[in-house]
Formats: sequence, C-alpha cells, structure tokens
Amino acid sequence: MTTKAIFYHAGCPVCVAAEQQFATALDPQRYAVEIVHLGESKERLSEAEGYGVKSVPALVIADQPFHINFGASIEQLR
Amino acid sequence: MTTKAIFYHAGCPVCVAAEQQFATALDPQRYAVEIVHLGESKERLSEAEGYGVKSVPALVIADQPFHINFGASIEQLR
Repeated sequence: MTTKAIFYHAGCPVCVAAEQQFATALDPQRYAVEIVHLGESKERLSEAEGYGVKSVPALVIADQPFHINFGASIEQLR
Repeated sequence: MTTKAIFYHAGCPVCVAAEQQFATALDPQRYAVEIVHLGESKERLSEAEGYGVKSVPALVIADQPFHINFGASIEQLR
C-alpha cells in the first residue's frame, strides 16, 4: 500500500528545484506523489490551506504539511 | 549508485516530525541518508553552513540545502 503525498508548487525556480531534487526522491514503493501547480489549479488552493500549507513549495505527506524552502505564499497565489 | 543526503536536525519536535515523515521517505535504492544532530555534533555546524543550511530541520541532497518547516536557526545551536 502506498501513502498519498501531494507536492504543491507554483512553477517558481525554488519550486522547480524542490520538485526535481525532492518530490522525485521519495520511495515510489511507498509513496504515490501527486504534483499540483497551484498557479494553474487555483481551485485547489483551499485544499492546500486545509492541510496547513502556508507557502510553496510544500509537500503534504500523510496529511502533514512540510514547507520546503520558500518560493511564494499561498496569499500571493490567489 | 546512491546519492548522498544529509538530514540535519536538533532534536526539536518539528525536527522529529520531519525526520519520521521525510528523511525516512527517500528512496533507499537511490539515497543514502545520514542523520546528524547538530545540537550534539556541534563540530559539524560549519559543514552544514557550508551547504547553505540556515535552520533545522534541513535536508541536503546532492549538495543542495532544503529547509523543511522551521525548528531552530543555526545561530541558536552555536
């Protein structure tokens, strides 16, 4: 069984670096990673905030938010 | 061949959560993760700073620093 992980980003340089080095580094045997571009999928901003995501890039693993460096705040994406 | 990754922490609650959900989530086939407690191994503070680590918990993958949420600054650990 795989655990759901969601990587939220906004296409920023910090986001791209985190996606390339980080979101792709998770063990595919254990984690199913969904990549969500919040700049393009604004309808998912509320979902991200519901997990406690304050800024991107962020990775939600098992419903827990982990902010990775800082690219942009959720407010800036609205 | 595995890529070297170093997880720097200081035993704080934010660090422990990141270690459990994050450092252990990396693909063991591709990443060899070393866990370093900077509160106990102060001699490695300079090494962490050399990678650009400003706060813990942080994960350095392929020499790139990724700060995960915020537990404590490097200055606070000196």
